[in-house]
Amino acid sequence: MTIVLTELSDQQQQSVAATREKVAKLHEELPRNELVVWTAGNVSERVPGTELFVIKPSGVRYDELSADVMVVCTLDGQKIVDGTPDRLSPSSDTAAHAYVYSNMPEVGGVVHTHSTYATAWAARREPIPCVLTMMADEFGGDVPIGPFALIGDDSIGRGIVETLRESRSPAVLMANHGPFTIGKDATAAVKAAVMVEEVARTVHISRQLGEPLRIEQSDIDSLYARYQNVYGQPGTK
Amino acid sequence: MTIVLTELSDQQQQSVAATREKVAKLHEELPRNELVVWTAGNVSERVPGTELFVIKPSGVRYDELSADVMVVCTLDGQKIVDGTPDRLSPSSDTAAHAYVYSNMPEVGGVVHTHSTYATAWAARREPIPCVLTMMADEFGGDVPIGPFALIGDDSIGRGIVETLRESRSPAVLMANHGPFTIGKDATAAVKAAVMVEEVARTVHISRQLGEPLRIEQSDIDSLYARYQNVYGQPGTK
Amino acid sequence: MTIVLTELSDQQQQSVAATREKVAKLHEELPRNELVVWTAGNVSERVPGTELFVIKPSGVRYDELSADVMVVCTLDGQKIVDGTPDRLSPSSDTAAHAYVYSNMPEVGGVVHTHSTYATAWAARREPIPCVLTMMADEFGGDVPIGPFALIGDDSIGRGIVETLRESRSPAVLMANHGPFTIGKDATAAVKAAVMVEEVARTVHISRQLGEPLRIEQSDIDSLYARYQNVYGQPGTK
Amino acid sequence: MTIVLTELSDQQQQSVAATREKVAKLHEELPRNELVVWTAGNVSERVPGTELFVIKPSGVRYDELSADVMVVCTLDGQKIVDGTPDRLSPSSDTAAHAYVYSNMPEVGGVVHTHSTYATAWAARREPIPCVLTMMADEFGGDVPIGPFALIGDDSIGRGIVETLRESRSPAVLMANHGPFTIGKDATAAVKAAVMVEEVARTVHISRQLGEPLRIEQSDIDSLYARYQNVYGQPGTK
Repeated sequence: MTIVLTELSDQQQQSVAATREKVAKLHEELPRNELVVWTAGNVSERVPGTELFVIKPSGVRYDELSADVMVVCTLDGQKIVDGTPDRLSPSSDTAAHAYVYSNMPEVGGVVHTHSTYATAWAARREPIPCVLTMMADEFGGDVPIGPFALIGDDSIGRGIVETLRESRSPAVLMANHGPFTIGKDATAAVKAAVMVEEVARTVHISRQLGEPLRIEQSDIDSLYARYQNVYGQPGTK
Repeated sequence: MTIVLTELSDQQQQSVAATREKVAKLHEELPRNELVVWTAGNVSERVPGTELFVIKPSGVRYDELSADVMVVCTLDGQKIVDGTPDRLSPSSDTAAHAYVYSNMPEVGGVVHTHSTYATAWAARREPIPCVLTMMADEFGGDVPIGPFALIGDDSIGRGIVETLRESRSPAVLMANHGPFTIGKDATAAVKAAVMVEEVARTVHISRQLGEPLRIEQSDIDSLYARYQNVYGQPGTK
Repeated sequence: MTIVLTELSDQQQQSVAATREKVAKLHEELPRNELVVWTAGNVSERVPGTELFVIKPSGVRYDELSADVMVVCTLDGQKIVDGTPDRLSPSSDTAAHAYVYSNMPEVGGVVHTHSTYATAWAARREPIPCVLTMMADEFGGDVPIGPFALIGDDSIGRGIVETLRESRSPAVLMANHGPFTIGKDATAAVKAAVMVEEVARTVHISRQLGEPLRIEQSDIDSLYARYQNVYGQPGTK
Repeated sequence: MTIVLTELSDQQQQSVAATREKVAKLHEELPRNELVVWTAGNVSERVPGTELFVIKPSGVRYDELSADVMVVCTLDGQKIVDGTPDRLSPSSDTAAHAYVYSNMPEVGGVVHTHSTYATAWAARREPIPCVLTMMADEFGGDVPIGPFALIGDDSIGRGIVETLRESRSPAVLMANHGPFTIGKDATAAVKAAVMVEEVARTVHISRQLGEPLRIEQSDIDSLYARYQNVYGQPGTK
């Protein structure tokens, strides 16, 4: 089925434009937080009031991204027709993002990177143990490992969804591949991508010289509950 | 008890304004020195001539901070009324800062971060051994570990104060959490936050390939005494 | 034999000028991606429609490079006469670049760095095992080690060519020395230089805490085939 | 003996002014190359045609340095009188720089940092083995360890001079302290400070996963001889 952008309502078209702007802008966070080299990471966000999401075009470098080149896709990962004849192809990870949006209606943003420390844990297929209060706050426990999956069909998307459904964590480390993170919107997913690299790095470094001490499960639960409810400014969470 | 900012004397109000400016500015040092990601660190300073201190608002990113959004608190950690209807909530670590100011009158500035290497030692609950002349200079010995403490009551503040009272170090590594540092003002506390990460990193790296050699206690004492008295420009220390 | 730049056709001279511009610009990627310190890395590119290539001058720092100072060489590594009396000497690695262009006609760009993690593997003379999907994508398998070779004759060039001919990898780690990378043009060779450091770093970090799991050869083959054919925008690869 | 700046010849005063400018500028390289945090590193240079050298003032941050605040000292480390009433005190490492200038007439520049990886080797009192061609080029062999010495008298200076006299290396790692480097001028000493950190880092990382292979002594000799004579542009070395 072909969806044509100009057939959307005015409000939906504005929503698409706003999301393009936001997703383009958020990509700046990936190099700024040293999560990516060259073109190897992408952010997407669901377009409010539509069955669409916006994602990075494939193989384009971060300093060449703008709202204009962002690609709009349907939830099955098909690029929609928008009257731009040379519209770029969406990220090669689009199918994985689309699968998440289709199967996790509460998710509004998805991020994928190959950030170094998170990917290092992924190459050993080893979850990151919850030994930091900031992990308890943000992830509510260990960061889990997803299955090894090849690109090209639903396997990566399924691996992400199945792993995250059994965890409080907004991040999954796909085996030998790298992290995918989710959030209520793209900003939250980017924050999770930043935080998963930070905890991957800190716990890695801690373990290099001995075994870090686990936090008790009851303390993890209490930190997680507090952070999800209390932290930040009223009304922003 | 409610304190209202406009009930302070003119001089006190100027003092509050100057401290807000300074604390906002000092927050720039945290990302510049790679001590923080996202919003996870905060600086506070006691307001001279008052029973108040100024601290970062909760959950606000470093590039959005300005003197205007800094929060003024009483020494029991309560935000004071300042006529700004949408004044933000103070950092979720405010109670810990407040406890330090209440119990260590000589302290004029407090900093908290989750800087990577310092936090890695904290996750193993292992003090950083004094094997560098710059540690002897700045910390006068090992950097100590504080207890594991949950956020929400006085435990973090008490852990900081009890640990620092038994040490020359201006930095304590709170177990599984991260460093807190103190100083005669916020600049000194920021410097201690920068230095504790630097020595945590250098000693970590040194120990990865063998055991660094300790400095004799008498040499530590002599380096510390000299640095505290001689270093820098006359009249600045 | 002396080649004089002004004896080239107008089109060839324009081609030289365009390549100088491009090669000067691409050198910015080396410090930006933290692949070099001081002057220790260089990029070259074959000049289309000629038997020449353009390379960095020796011992010049990256922030002093411009199209003007780039050096034009023949495929035997001799600097050509271009009417600029104080034309700088080409990089001390010019002979190695020249050997590659002479012996691998499909190569249009060469990069050499001493990037830290790649060089660390090179100092142990140990290939980087293919444990990441992005390695399968970009390198099609392990990153190989080349022989130990002294500067001054053909040995480095021969070592590069002999090693790369037996591998899908566009990168070789010359023993105790550092990485050389090739590509269809200088941009592709720079990308390979960025990626080889990234995978060297990620696999190093993964192995610090255990053994990363290899990807099956059939999966490597399928990822490599897909990436070389599908990734990026149509017509850019 | 008091030396007064205005009693120098016009040419000498110009020489002092030019050196101040150059030394102030070179300090920018320390943070740019991540060799220092806060104020912990310094550059000095001998003033041509005088018995003086210029050095950083003590405890001043890098972004506050300018030619104006640089301090002029005699070869015994005494600050000279220059008519500026509030002239700052020279670096607390001035005695060590002065000792080097007094005892090594061929040295025109000295740099001291606490750069992380070099200091990590220094804390274990372990020389950096020559396992990289770029070490053979720049250092002509291992980077040696100097003795443990307290600040306050000649011991640091003597340790530097005695160690460097027995080595080709322009860098010495003072035990538990950090690197000092020398050069024919301050630029060369800064380059050595950058390179010693780079090789300290690369060899450290290489050794984390096994033993890097040493380069044969005859190969080191041949690389060193070539680099000292051939590298760079004619007339710049």
